Amino acid sequence: MDNSILTLQSPLDMHLHLREQEMLQLVAPLSARSFAAAVIMPNLLQPVDSLAAVTSYHKAIVNACGAELFTPYMTLFFRDYSKDELMSAREAVLGVKLYPAGITTQSEAGVRDFDAIGTTVALLEELDIPLLVHGESNGFVMDRETEFLQVYEWLANNFPKLRLVMEHISTAAALRFLERHPQVAATVTLHHLMLSLDDVAGGLLQPHLFCKPIAKTPQDRDALRQAVFQGHPQLMFGSDSAPHPRHAKECCGCAAGIFSAPVALPMLAQLFEEADCLDTLPIFVTENAVRFYKIEPPAKNVYLGRQKWCVPELYGMVRPFLAGNELRWNLLDVETTD
Amino acid sequence: MDNSILTLQSPLDMHLHLREQEMLQLVAPLSARSFAAAVIMPNLLQPVDSLAAVTSYHKAIVNACGAELFTPYMTLFFRDYSKDELMSAREAVLGVKLYPAGITTQSEAGVRDFDAIGTTVALLEELDIPLLVHGESNGFVMDRETEFLQVYEWLANNFPKLRLVMEHISTAAALRFLERHPQVAATVTLHHLMLSLDDVAGGLLQPHLFCKPIAKTPQDRDALRQAVFQGHPQLMFGSDSAPHPRHAKECCGCAAGIFSAPVALPMLAQLFEEADCLDTLPIFVTENAVRFYKIEPPAKNVYLGRQKWCVPELYGMVRPFLAGNELRWNLLDVETTD
Repeated sequence: MDNSILTLQSPLDMHLHLREQEMLQLVAPLSARSFAAAVIMPNLLQPVDSLAAVTSYHKAIVNACGAELFTPYMTLFFRDYSKDELMSAREAVLGVKLYPAGITTQSEAGVRDFDAIGTTVALLEELDIPLLVHGESNGFVMDRETEFLQVYEWLANNFPKLRLVMEHISTAAALRFLERHPQVAATVTLHHLMLSLDDVAGGLLQPHLFCKPIAKTPQDRDALRQAVFQGHPQLMFGSDSAPHPRHAKECCGCAAGIFSAPVALPMLAQLFEEADCLDTLPIFVTENAVRFYKIEPPAKNVYLGRQKWCVPELYGMVRPFLAGNELRWNLLDVETTD
Repeated sequence: MDNSILTLQSPLDMHLHLREQEMLQLVAPLSARSFAAAVIMPNLLQPVDSLAAVTSYHKAIVNACGAELFTPYMTLFFRDYSKDELMSAREAVLGVKLYPAGITTQSEAGVRDFDAIGTTVALLEELDIPLLVHGESNGFVMDRETEFLQVYEWLANNFPKLRLVMEHISTAAALRFLERHPQVAATVTLHHLMLSLDDVAGGLLQPHLFCKPIAKTPQDRDALRQAVFQGHPQLMFGSDSAPHPRHAKECCGCAAGIFSAPVALPMLAQLFEEADCLDTLPIFVTENAVRFYKIEPPAKNVYLGRQKWCVPELYGMVRPFLAGNELRWNLLDVETTD
């Protein structure tokens, strides 16, 4: 067997920020080159919270991706929706994304009163539309995800048929929650598999490693790694790749977000190989998502070659995750198998 | 009584970084205007670890302060010292400052092996020279101070007459340690009375609020406030004011340090007043330090006026703590009472 080539069949990024305008033009082709499909987050300046907005944003993304075979799975920004609204939108979206108000970039229109969301959540359960959740409280930054578990608990217990996704989990506590709720799924980012708060603020402060949820303890990171490496059936890769122009990162008040899309697959291959777990990588980047979301992503082989490359310092005005680092796997030209 | 003027008799900053060259010229007069004396940290590019270096640095500081009445209490950078070295330097320094190697700015020459420090520490105890300690382990950033308590415990138990100062404590655990060791003292910064990690990394990332030890939980901050407001006898004000040029803060890898010297006294007055504890402010900024260190600082009244002012955005190239904020007390012209 030629072990200098790694073939990934329809790798998926189940949590992606593509932004708009020039930023969309810059970053969409980079995701489209690496992945067969991605779940597109709806937190634009004007939240994507109508079928018309979904349709318009979908068109902009497809245009920006160029000729690459790439399916953007769209999401609606959570608000109170009527059954008619959800029924008319369901074919156009993969799910509805819920943000607590103000918890991260462009989430001001998010949920302020969790006691008031039950009606819409019940509709999502009834219509079998997945609910994707940014699960953080407004408490102490290191405790936000753990504190939010009570909301997840309430959702899981009161809406047992709801397809619930805990987005970008960052703690061992979230993994323990998943054990108690086998019907719930979660996404895990590349950076939460690699970073702890020590990397962000333990030496010099590293704005390019600042994200929400913030990277937690080394124990949390290691628990996530172990779970993913072992092929945990509820964990799906979602990069949460979130580009900000460099001037919004290296400044007086730095925006949260790590731009990892162009390095995600090569670095994941390196991590899984180092853990001697390359065989479970497809479970994480394809299979669990296909099963949970009941999707049929485009048949697209993505090839990684065992050849060293150095991550660029910048893509346009955006500094990528691992900028300047040498990686052992590189993305080769892709081929569609349709 | 005129409550529009607050008179502080010989306020002291028991932990101060003045740097060298142009930075020294910029910041020394700002401390000299606010304080009667300050303890000067020895972590220059070339650590201040000889009597000759102390003498030279002292001269540079006095020159930079101009005509202000201000005593720089010098410190030696901890290394293995002979008894002769310590005896010859003791009149020129207030104490010896110990840094774990690499734990903060310019600490590379610090201690790597704590098992090897006993001989020099015993000399400090014998000669009654205070030992000032940056107390952080090299563990997880939020646990470093708590983990270091075992070193403090060893020092306190094995050198019972050593005058030991825990510098810039940031945790409730350090306060509990002080309760068990009444002979030990500690400094507390202004920023650790005001900040938690939420302020640094809970919203946008704030490089100008990044310091070592990093700000901890709201509970830690509140415990420090309560202790200081109540006139805790072991706690001395030490600003840990640490200027960095703006370009070293707003960049890709941001240096740790908060430049608080010019706002320290006005903001402390505001905090103590808000807590209805203005009467304990002299205990914190003068009396505890005079008693612990057995010093006679210059008799210098510093007057704060109840008049609003806006903290400048910059002093030279340095952005101060609370830049742009309006404070309720302002520093008035000072008068010496000698």
